[in-house]
Amino acid sequence: MAVIVPSRRVRRTPFSEGVEAAGVKAYTVYNHMLLPTVFRSVEEDYHHLKSAVQVWDVSVERQVELRGPDAGRLMQMLTPRDLRGMLPGACYYLPTVDETGGMLNDPVALKLSEDRYWVSIADSDLLLWVKGLAYAWHLDVIVDEPDVSPLAIQGPKADDLAAAVFGDGVRALKFFRYGYFDFEGTQMLVARSGYSKQGGFEVYVEGHERGMPLWNALMEAGRNMDVHAGCPNLIERVEGGLLSYGNDMNRDNTPHECGLGRFCSTQTAVGCVGRDALLRVAKEGPVKQVRAIEIEGDIPSCDRLWKITAGGKPIGQVTSAAYSPDFGVNVAIGMVRMTHWDAGTPIEVQTQDGRRDAVVHEAFWI
Amino acid sequence: MAVIVPSRRVRRTPFSEGVEAAGVKAYTVYNHMLLPTVFRSVEEDYHHLKSAVQVWDVSVERQVELRGPDAGRLMQMLTPRDLRGMLPGACYYLPTVDETGGMLNDPVALKLSEDRYWVSIADSDLLLWVKGLAYAWHLDVIVDEPDVSPLAIQGPKADDLAAAVFGDGVRALKFFRYGYFDFEGTQMLVARSGYSKQGGFEVYVEGHERGMPLWNALMEAGRNMDVHAGCPNLIERVEGGLLSYGNDMNRDNTPHECGLGRFCSTQTAVGCVGRDALLRVAKEGPVKQVRAIEIEGDIPSCDRLWKITAGGKPIGQVTSAAYSPDFGVNVAIGMVRMTHWDAGTPIEVQTQDGRRDAVVHEAFWI
Repeated sequence: MAVIVPSRRVRRTPFSEGVEAAGVKAYTVYNHMLLPTVFRSVEEDYHHLKSAVQVWDVSVERQVELRGPDAGRLMQMLTPRDLRGMLPGACYYLPTVDETGGMLNDPVALKLSEDRYWVSIADSDLLLWVKGLAYAWHLDVIVDEPDVSPLAIQGPKADDLAAAVFGDGVRALKFFRYGYFDFEGTQMLVARSGYSKQGGFEVYVEGHERGMPLWNALMEAGRNMDVHAGCPNLIERVEGGLLSYGNDMNRDNTPHECGLGRFCSTQTAVGCVGRDALLRVAKEGPVKQVRAIEIEGDIPSCDRLWKITAGGKPIGQVTSAAYSPDFGVNVAIGMVRMTHWDAGTPIEVQTQDGRRDAVVHEAFWI
Repeated sequence: MAVIVPSRRVRRTPFSEGVEAAGVKAYTVYNHMLLPTVFRSVEEDYHHLKSAVQVWDVSVERQVELRGPDAGRLMQMLTPRDLRGMLPGACYYLPTVDETGGMLNDPVALKLSEDRYWVSIADSDLLLWVKGLAYAWHLDVIVDEPDVSPLAIQGPKADDLAAAVFGDGVRALKFFRYGYFDFEGTQMLVARSGYSKQGGFEVYVEGHERGMPLWNALMEAGRNMDVHAGCPNLIERVEGGLLSYGNDMNRDNTPHECGLGRFCSTQTAVGCVGRDALLRVAKEGPVKQVRAIEIEGDIPSCDRLWKITAGGKPIGQVTSAAYSPDFGVNVAIGMVRMTHWDAGTPIEVQTQDGRRDAVVHEAFWI
């Protein structure tokens, strides 16, 4: 594997010092910023994530802040999810689409107040789309990237660790809700959310200088909980069917193809850009969709699309894959045409190392 | 240095196979795609670039295609450069700005015909900005990313190598002009341009499958010219004062701050988004601006902003730096306030390894 060359363009984070001290072994780049991908090994990190608690530098989840009288109107333009019922304190997972209904990003949005939102983005410069719409529609709203960097606490002992630093009140937080909790005399926004199936929290750290004090406090408080620096884990996310924007979906895909139809209320999401394009697919359903796929044999690293065929005919593609130690099989995420998407359908996957037999799995491995 | 972990999200290019065979040692990520940064060593690549000829995989210069009756109008919305005189066959370097006059990208645009342009972008999803404007203004234009990947031929022997593959006609191409040249029976768009000061060409390869045949033909034809795979070289670009979007400028900066005022005709660029914001700075001039900076002593890797001070007072920042073997000094690019931007002004640079004495240099090292 090649190394990554440092430059200012690939931004460091408020937690980079802690990440380096914890012995980060590999990175990727996400939203023009460093995202750790391996600490001990992908497998060791995986077992540890499922049994203990990890602190993740997910600063790469940059925020797009919408602030002003038209913030709510602009928010609804971004997504086919109906936001009328959204209240301050809520986190909403939002498919965001362009005028053709193609996915531009799949952020988690926080409503801070009636006229202020944070949109915590996946890997695309959604800021430019939001700014373009706000400008061209003459909306009364300021769109910018604030100095906010999420730090995640994930794993079965996440509640204990969060409580040790923020107090027991944090245990009462419901899934996809946030609250404000004291840390060394200042209030921090803590949400029950995160990019794993192990449960936990994301702390939205406001101000670069507050990063390392929080990192250090979590590491100190978690010493007897076997806390370790971690990061989104490829094996765990594929097992759990957590989609990754740019890997498993992009502008070519509608939310319905991504299995996100349950987040779309296209009929009532009045003002949503792309609503016209999505109305028909919302009614008829997609012709291809994300599926869990089990692949036989040894597989290489999934660094490119793997074509899926059936009897030599192309019927889809695998977009993420890994060997799962806990389930003893290769788990994968793919997009499969409706003719072959039923559970149990035998298919073939064309990797860069050759053809592998595979089968559409009934569900992800949770 | 940490390694970079492969995933489909960080896209491979049509030339990745050739890049790997040539022994790439390091990458960065640029526009969600792999960009090689080192082959033999940064220093060895540098000397070779200045003395021979290199073939660069710069597929990361993704294209934003604008096609339709309103393509020209939309192009002028993107930039304060006056495009009225732009003709097919021309490449224009375009500062692109938001409504505040802040730099969103600094692409090279090609006018293919009256209603069709390619915008060859630096590292930000400019596509989303252009799509947002086109949609919200109801413009009659299609905006998309075509399957086009630039391959650069750079170095003093670039003309010889290009002529060996495309014929002697390519030698007559003027700077920042393009033409169509035959390669194995198909026409390829070749421009005299590229991200070095050594001269050369960029071939806009249409269609993924045409990548490796061209790569191999160039390597074969260049055998007696000491051709080698290369990439944009940090030392050479800093010596030459070639700015890098995300390193040396971003949304905080106006084109005038970046020394790009000569590309702005703000008075006559009617329709340019951000024109109002730029009119005053165009008249008064900026209060800080890009400068060449010479730094004393040993310097670490410039992976973050280095504050510039004078007598303890902050007066700017260094954004790129490297040791130059040819000039025997540390060359750097920085943004300096007008109080201290005159050539010869002594300043101090705060690196992560400590303070270094420095001086504003009269010009870049060319």
